[in-house]
Amino acid sequence: MMSTDFQTWATERLALIETCLESHLPALNCAPERLHDAMRYVVLGGGKRVRPLLAFAAGELNGADEARVTLAGAAVELIHAYSLVHDDLPCMDDDVLRRGKPTCHVKYDQATALLVGDSLQSLAFQLLAESRLTEDPYEQLEMIKHLAFAAGSRGMAGGQAIDLDSVGKTLSLPELEFMHIHKTGALIRAAVTLGASCGNQLDDARLKRLDHFAKCIGLAFQVVDDVLDAEATTAALGKTAGKDAENNKPTYVSILGAKQARELAEALQQDAHRTLDQLESSALRLKQVTDFIIQRKF
Amino acid sequence: MMSTDFQTWATERLALIETCLESHLPALNCAPERLHDAMRYVVLGGGKRVRPLLAFAAGELNGADEARVTLAGAAVELIHAYSLVHDDLPCMDDDVLRRGKPTCHVKYDQATALLVGDSLQSLAFQLLAESRLTEDPYEQLEMIKHLAFAAGSRGMAGGQAIDLDSVGKTLSLPELEFMHIHKTGALIRAAVTLGASCGNQLDDARLKRLDHFAKCIGLAFQVVDDVLDAEATTAALGKTAGKDAENNKPTYVSILGAKQARELAEALQQDAHRTLDQLESSALRLKQVTDFIIQRKF
Repeated sequence: MMSTDFQTWATERLALIETCLESHLPALNCAPERLHDAMRYVVLGGGKRVRPLLAFAAGELNGADEARVTLAGAAVELIHAYSLVHDDLPCMDDDVLRRGKPTCHVKYDQATALLVGDSLQSLAFQLLAESRLTEDPYEQLEMIKHLAFAAGSRGMAGGQAIDLDSVGKTLSLPELEFMHIHKTGALIRAAVTLGASCGNQLDDARLKRLDHFAKCIGLAFQVVDDVLDAEATTAALGKTAGKDAENNKPTYVSILGAKQARELAEALQQDAHRTLDQLESSALRLKQVTDFIIQRKF
Repeated sequence: MMSTDFQTWATERLALIETCLESHLPALNCAPERLHDAMRYVVLGGGKRVRPLLAFAAGELNGADEARVTLAGAAVELIHAYSLVHDDLPCMDDDVLRRGKPTCHVKYDQATALLVGDSLQSLAFQLLAESRLTEDPYEQLEMIKHLAFAAGSRGMAGGQAIDLDSVGKTLSLPELEFMHIHKTGALIRAAVTLGASCGNQLDDARLKRLDHFAKCIGLAFQVVDDVLDAEATTAALGKTAGKDAENNKPTYVSILGAKQARELAEALQQDAHRTLDQLESSALRLKQVTDFIIQRKF
């Protein structure tokens, strides 16, 4: 169960992220207006903002300044938003509905959607470079490197390539895990690491634990996603449900069945909690965000 | 006329850039192999490398370490390469030939081309963040910010959006200039600034002059591009000639005519040379690269 306390905390942080994104996205009256309108359309006023929430919770664990974590979380969210716009394009997943609204290429056009994604990626790195996010500037360069790697061909974009290549194929569980560690996991891990990086320096042992935690929830996130795609309605999800089965995509549900997939998500949730207990006597916020990820209905 | 001396200098620097790109692009045996194969296909063994050459020449003016400029120039080239891959897609310019070879989406497929572009952009920022490029790390963060801005919606990607929107329209000369200052100019200016940033700190007056120089050659580059598209052959260009007229795109040739466009390029060349004379008693390399840009036949 979500505590009221968590909901209040999350609502406050979502407002910080929204304000940050709003103020860093180019204004509507700034040329090219149509591109900037489309960028704002896909980023603002929607999404669960799971990655920024993770950044905030990790930052809180580590004594990070909230204004700095807001920028880091916003940068990760911009990368996530760009990836959704490109993934929805006809040459990729060809989807028409996202966050309960027409996808970018449906509302605008394909060329605009392409440039929206490209521009959001640039903006993410601009955000990470233009303000002071850490006491040590070399640590900030490390954060940029981390996000670039997580977004690139050996991270998120690479995972998407493996995903496309897997359509109609039978994958083993390890192969499916390899795909999702890249496609979803890399950026979720980056959110946790970047949030923590805004705070005190982490020693290697703590960093390793935090990364194991992030790996667990990155995978759990995807397992839950697969279950929801199979079991929830389009109305609840705000995106087309049942697409995986329709597209003959290997998922945790297609390989394990829904019941076992749910059990896997719970096992990962427990692993995440145990790891946090080893890391800190009370890692309350990270535990709450973990539970939110597992128990979400959309 | 190009001096032999310039050709030797350029050939040596092209080899440095090629080696740098080769070693920073993911290996072919690294998963996802097909994506990495496509990334290498579009980046290696082709292109004039005008932007890295400008970075080298600007760095030389400013006492920059060559290994550092190589990385900065390679990062700018990766952004340029990604933009070509996305521009060639069917939803944009729909081109089948680039650097004398089939374009990425023709050789592979559209989804791969999309992910290649996305991944190359990430890799560019990774390169700028992962090695030491300046004595002052804050200056390096400034370089990353500069490239992100130049690549984004208020730079290159924004210029491409304006370009798409201009098809079939009549533009005034200032409107055409506005488009190209963004589409081509922003990244060329970034190449010059990043190259110089690897060296000694520039005072504001010198920085302003260098930026005026970069603006001149950014525009001159595009004017020459328009002339070549109208007058050169597909074989000489390695890409489809005559596309602008075929697509009813406003260009310097369509607005001014070929003769006046050539004269404009020469006037910009002279402005660039004058600006360099004010900047430094001998800015030999930057002058040579300027002349190369204006006199090129492809």
